Amino acid sequence: MAEQPLRLSVEPARVRVDLEPVGRRAQVPAGSTVLAAAHSVGVELASTCGGRGTCGCCRIRIVDGAVTPLTENERQRLTAAELDAGERLACQTVLAADARIEIPSSSLTTTQRLQLEGHEIEVALDPAVVRVEVELAPPTIHDLRADATRLLDELEPDHPTIGLPVLAELSPRLRELLWSAAVAVHRPANEIVAVQPAGTLPLGLAVDVGTTKLAAYVVDLETGETLARGGVLNPQIATGEDVLSRIASANTDPGEHRSLQQAVVEAVTHLAENLCDEIGACLEELVDVVVVGNTAMHHLFAGLPVRQLGEAPYVAATSAALDIPATDVGLFVATGARLYSPPLIAGYVGADHVAMLLASGVAETDATVLALDIGTNTEISLACGGRLWSCSTASGPAFEGAHISNGMRAAPGAIERVHFRDGRFLVQTVGDRPPVGLCGSGILDAVAEGVRAGIIDPRGALSKSHPLVVPHNGRPACLLVPAADAGHHRDIFLTRSDVGEIQLAKGAIHAGIEVLLAAAGIDVGELEEVVVAGAFGTYLDVRSAIRIGLLPELPEEHVRQVGNAAGAGARQLLLSRERRARAVELARSANYLELTTHPEFADHFVAGMGF
Amino acid sequence: MAEQPLRLSVEPARVRVDLEPVGRRAQVPAGSTVLAAAHSVGVELASTCGGRGTCGCCRIRIVDGAVTPLTENERQRLTAAELDAGERLACQTVLAADARIEIPSSSLTTTQRLQLEGHEIEVALDPAVVRVEVELAPPTIHDLRADATRLLDELEPDHPTIGLPVLAELSPRLRELLWSAAVAVHRPANEIVAVQPAGTLPLGLAVDVGTTKLAAYVVDLETGETLARGGVLNPQIATGEDVLSRIASANTDPGEHRSLQQAVVEAVTHLAENLCDEIGACLEELVDVVVVGNTAMHHLFAGLPVRQLGEAPYVAATSAALDIPATDVGLFVATGARLYSPPLIAGYVGADHVAMLLASGVAETDATVLALDIGTNTEISLACGGRLWSCSTASGPAFEGAHISNGMRAAPGAIERVHFRDGRFLVQTVGDRPPVGLCGSGILDAVAEGVRAGIIDPRGALSKSHPLVVPHNGRPACLLVPAADAGHHRDIFLTRSDVGEIQLAKGAIHAGIEVLLAAAGIDVGELEEVVVAGAFGTYLDVRSAIRIGLLPELPEEHVRQVGNAAGAGARQLLLSRERRARAVELARSANYLELTTHPEFADHFVAGMGF
Repeated sequence: MAEQPLRLSVEPARVRVDLEPVGRRAQVPAGSTVLAAAHSVGVELASTCGGRGTCGCCRIRIVDGAVTPLTENERQRLTAAELDAGERLACQTVLAADARIEIPSSSLTTTQRLQLEGHEIEVALDPAVVRVEVELAPPTIHDLRADATRLLDELEPDHPTIGLPVLAELSPRLRELLWSAAVAVHRPANEIVAVQPAGTLPLGLAVDVGTTKLAAYVVDLETGETLARGGVLNPQIATGEDVLSRIASANTDPGEHRSLQQAVVEAVTHLAENLCDEIGACLEELVDVVVVGNTAMHHLFAGLPVRQLGEAPYVAATSAALDIPATDVGLFVATGARLYSPPLIAGYVGADHVAMLLASGVAETDATVLALDIGTNTEISLACGGRLWSCSTASGPAFEGAHISNGMRAAPGAIERVHFRDGRFLVQTVGDRPPVGLCGSGILDAVAEGVRAGIIDPRGALSKSHPLVVPHNGRPACLLVPAADAGHHRDIFLTRSDVGEIQLAKGAIHAGIEVLLAAAGIDVGELEEVVVAGAFGTYLDVRSAIRIGLLPELPEEHVRQVGNAAGAGARQLLLSRERRARAVELARSANYLELTTHPEFADHFVAGMGF
Repeated sequence: MAEQPLRLSVEPARVRVDLEPVGRRAQVPAGSTVLAAAHSVGVELASTCGGRGTCGCCRIRIVDGAVTPLTENERQRLTAAELDAGERLACQTVLAADARIEIPSSSLTTTQRLQLEGHEIEVALDPAVVRVEVELAPPTIHDLRADATRLLDELEPDHPTIGLPVLAELSPRLRELLWSAAVAVHRPANEIVAVQPAGTLPLGLAVDVGTTKLAAYVVDLETGETLARGGVLNPQIATGEDVLSRIASANTDPGEHRSLQQAVVEAVTHLAENLCDEIGACLEELVDVVVVGNTAMHHLFAGLPVRQLGEAPYVAATSAALDIPATDVGLFVATGARLYSPPLIAGYVGADHVAMLLASGVAETDATVLALDIGTNTEISLACGGRLWSCSTASGPAFEGAHISNGMRAAPGAIERVHFRDGRFLVQTVGDRPPVGLCGSGILDAVAEGVRAGIIDPRGALSKSHPLVVPHNGRPACLLVPAADAGHHRDIFLTRSDVGEIQLAKGAIHAGIEVLLAAAGIDVGELEEVVVAGAFGTYLDVRSAIRIGLLPELPEEHVRQVGNAAGAGARQLLLSRERRARAVELARSANYLELTTHPEFADHFVAGMGF
C-alpha cells in the first residue's frame, strides 16, 4: 500500500489500439506488444510459440501508428512482399503510441469450429451421485440429536459421511429448507455432497479439457439426458498452442503454473455457468464433475506438477483415477461435489484417450479394432482378442495447420477440402468464405490429390515439369489457389517442406500402427475396424487418408469417425459407476509400448514416409 | 486502491496511550476505546460482556489525559468511591488525546495460570499416523511408472491413496529428496499425508481449545513422548469470555464467524510454531493433529455453525468424530495432515469431556466413578457397572471469578486459599503477591470457612452479629482482607450475593449428580471415586468442596484431581487408534440426561443450595 503513489508515478502512458476488421479497441500501457493488446480484449491471435517470434502465426498489418522496428525474427519469418505490404508479427511489434492494426482471419483462432458432438454408446444409468429426498423431524427437547446425525439416521443403512464444507452449511440449510431436502449422495465415496431444496434434480458436469478447446456438457443424472453443451477456447492458448509450450510456461515459476491452472478452471466455471443459465439451473446444482484431458492438460487442470512430463523419461505425476473434492482445484459447484478423472495409460496416452476408448466401444469389443486420436501427439490403441495395446507417437502439428506455409486452423476461409480436376485444384472452405489458407483436412487432401495428379512423387518431391509447380521464394511450390481466384492478396501454395511435414506425420503414425500390430501378432488385413476420434479425425477425408497411407488400407466403410468421443466418454463416466470401474480396469490392463526406444520404430517410420 | 488517498485524508489523528503498570504504549486512532488500545498491544484486559459495558470487568483508572465523560453503564457499575478514585470502564472510555492509564491486575487476564499438566493413563503405542521409509528407483525409459504409482507400489500391500495437496508436491519433492523419503501414512484413512526427508520423525499436535485458554502439545508419535507443551489465551476472549458471548458474536454476521475461527486457528498455529521452534522442528513435521474442546469451541474451531447451539433446543451441528484435512480449517501443518476430533455426547457435553473420560480411565473403569469438569457449564459423568450416564448443568461463572464482587481470574495477587483462624481470615495468593481479589478456589474456601466460622448460616445469609460482617455499599458483607492488610486501596469482601452465586453453582452441580445417581439406581455412598478435572478442579481445596456440598461426602482421598485431562486425552488420541475407537464407542453408548426437562432437577437444585 505504501508503494502505491510511487507505482502510480512511474506507470507508463496508455495507448489506444484499434483492431480491425474485428472492430475491438484495446487500451494498454505503451510498451505492450500487439499480441498482448489483442489478448487483453479477448481477440485470440494465434501464437504457437508462446510469443517468442518463432512460429510466425501472429501475422498482422500496421495500418497506422508508431511501433518498434522490425526484429531479426520477423526478417526471417516474413517475405519481402509481406514486409512491403506492412506485415509484422504481433508478438515482436511493440506499441509506442496509438495504432490501428489489421488482423487477417488466418491469424485468428477465435472463430474456429469447436467440435462437441461425439458418437455415443448407450450405458445403463447408474450414476456415481444419486438424489435421496428426506423429510426430517425438527429437533425438540425430547430429540436432541445433532443435525448431521438427524440427517444421517434418515439415510440408513448406508450412513454416509459428510465432509466439512457441507457440514459447515448444514444447520442453517436444513432450517431454511424447513427440514425437507433433496440430498445428493456420492455413492463410491459414500458421502453427502449437497443438501438442496426438495425436488432439485441432480445435474452433472462433463468436461473435455483439450489443448485448444474446452467442451462441457450438463447432464441430468437421473435421465442421462444432455441438457446443454458448449465449447470455448482453452485460455491457456495465450501462452502457446501446444502442450510443450504450456509445460515450459508452467515451469518458469510457481505463479505461472498457478495462473495457467486458474485460467482453465475459470474458463470451465464460466462455461458451466452459461450452460446452467441456458437451462435455468445454477452452478450449485452440479453435484458431480468428470474431467478428461491429455496428461498435460489433466495435470495443469488439477494443479499437478508438469516439469517431469516435459523432461526425459516423461512420466506423469499420477496415472491413477482422480477422485477429489472439486473445490481442491478451485471449481465451485455444489459445496461438496467431487471431481472424477479416469486413469491414464501413460504420460502421453491420457485420460482423454481412455474416455474415447470407453465411448467408442473399443474398451470392450471382441473385434480387432484400431483406434486413433490424431493430433500433435497421436495416441493409438489396438484391441485384439480382448487385449489392448497402446502407444503415442509424435506426429507434429501439421494437421493443426502449423508448420505449413499457408496453414491455419479450421477458421472461416480455411480450405478444408481439395479436389484435383481438369488440371486444376478445386477447393471448399469453412463457411464458404474466400480461401485464406489450409487447415488440417485441406492439407491432407492437397497432398493426396497432388500424389494422385502426379504433382508429388513417391518420395514427396514436387514434379518441376508440372504446370502448377512454380517458383516461390526461390524454390518450386505447387500453386493451389492463385491470388486472383482467391480474391486475396497472396497465392496459396503447397511447398516441398509442407509435403515433408505430412510425410513425417504419416511416417510416425504408420510406425505406431505397425509396432502395435506386431505386438498383437496380427497383420493389417486382419483389422476389422479403424476408429478415428477428435476434431481432425472427424473432418478428414477418409479416402485421402487411406490413399496417402495415413490410415491402413481398408475398405473405406470400415473406418468410423467418432467425433469428440472423449467428451462422450466423460458423460458416460458421470452416468455409470460401471464405466468408472471399466476405465480403471482398461488403464491397468493396457499394454503400453514406448516407441522412442522400440528397435523397429525407425525402420517403420522411414518406410511409412513414402507415397 | 483508488480510494486510498481519500481514506488517508480522513483518517483520524493517532493518540498515544501509556498503559501502567505493565509499561506498554499503544498508538491508536483518536476515538478508540481504552479497551481497544490495550488489546491492540496485547494487554489482555478482561471483558466478559464483549465490550458492552455490562460486566464491569475492565476497570481502569485515568491517570492523565482527555477522555469522554462517564456513561450511564459506568454510573451503574462503579461505586461513588471508585468514581472518586478516577476509575472507569475501559470499554466505555473513548480516547480524545494522549493519555496515561492505570490497569489494576484484577482487570488483566494475561498473567493467569495456564494449566498444561494432566493425569495420564498409559496407552499402547498404535498411532494413527506412522512413518515408512522408502528408497525408490528413479524412472527410466524402461520403467515409466507415474511418480505416485512408483511410490505406492513400494507401500504394498496397503496401497494407500494420495490426496491432491500431497500429489501436487510429490514429483518435485521425490526428485529433490533423490528418491529416498520418510512417508507418513494415515492408517485409518489409508492415505499418504506427508513425504519428508529420510529419517524425519513423525510428530503429532494435540490441542485443547478451551473457552479461556489454548493448550498445545507436540508429541513424538514413535515414542509417545511429549516433546514440548505450551499455552496461550484463546484470542476469541476479546469478543467475550463465555461461550454464549462467542455464539452471539458469531451470529452477528458470517464475517464475524469467520474471524473468530481464523483467530483461534492462527493462535494455535502460532503456538505450535513456537513449540516446534523449541525442539528444532518445523510445522511441516506435524503429520497428525487432534483437537478437543467443548462443543461451541469445537464448532467455532472447525468453522461449523453455532446459531442452533445458542437457541433452544441447543443442538450440535454434528456429534460425530471429525476426521478432515487440517487445511480445511486453515491449519497449515504437513501438507496432507488430517485433523481428528473425538465425538461429542451432547450439545453441552463435548469432545473435551470425552477426552477427559478417556485420559482419566473413567471410560473403561469397572468401578463406580463420578467425573466432573467444573466450569460455567459443568459436565458430569457417572460410570457404574460398565455403563455411563452424562449430563451438563449451568453452574455459572462464579468459579472463574466472574459475578463475584471482588472476583478475578487466577492471576498474580488472586487469593487462592482462605483459612479462618483466631477470628480472622488468612489468605494465600497466586505468586505471593499482595491480595487483589478472589479466584475460584479462593471463593470456594472463603465460603467454606465462612460457614465453618458461623459467619454464613445454612441458608447462605451473613450473620450480622459477627465482627467481620460490616456494612458495605449499604449492605452487610464479610470483610476478608482489610485495605490496610492488603497494601491495596480497597477492602476485599465476600457479599451475600457472592455466597448466593456459590449456592447456585453447587445447587446445579448437586442436582446433576443426584439425577445421575438416580438414573444409575445407586446411592451416593456407593461411589468409589470422584474425578475432578480442569483448572478450577485442580486448584480447589477438596475439603472445602466437600464441606460446602459441592462434591459428595466421601473420604477426601477418594477424590482425584486430574488436571488438564482433556489435553492428556487429546495426546492419547494421537498415539492410539484404539483410543479413537473407544471414544466413538463411549460417545455412542453414553446415556445423556437432559436436566432442563428432568422432573426432579428443580427439587434437587433447591435442596442442594443450603449448607
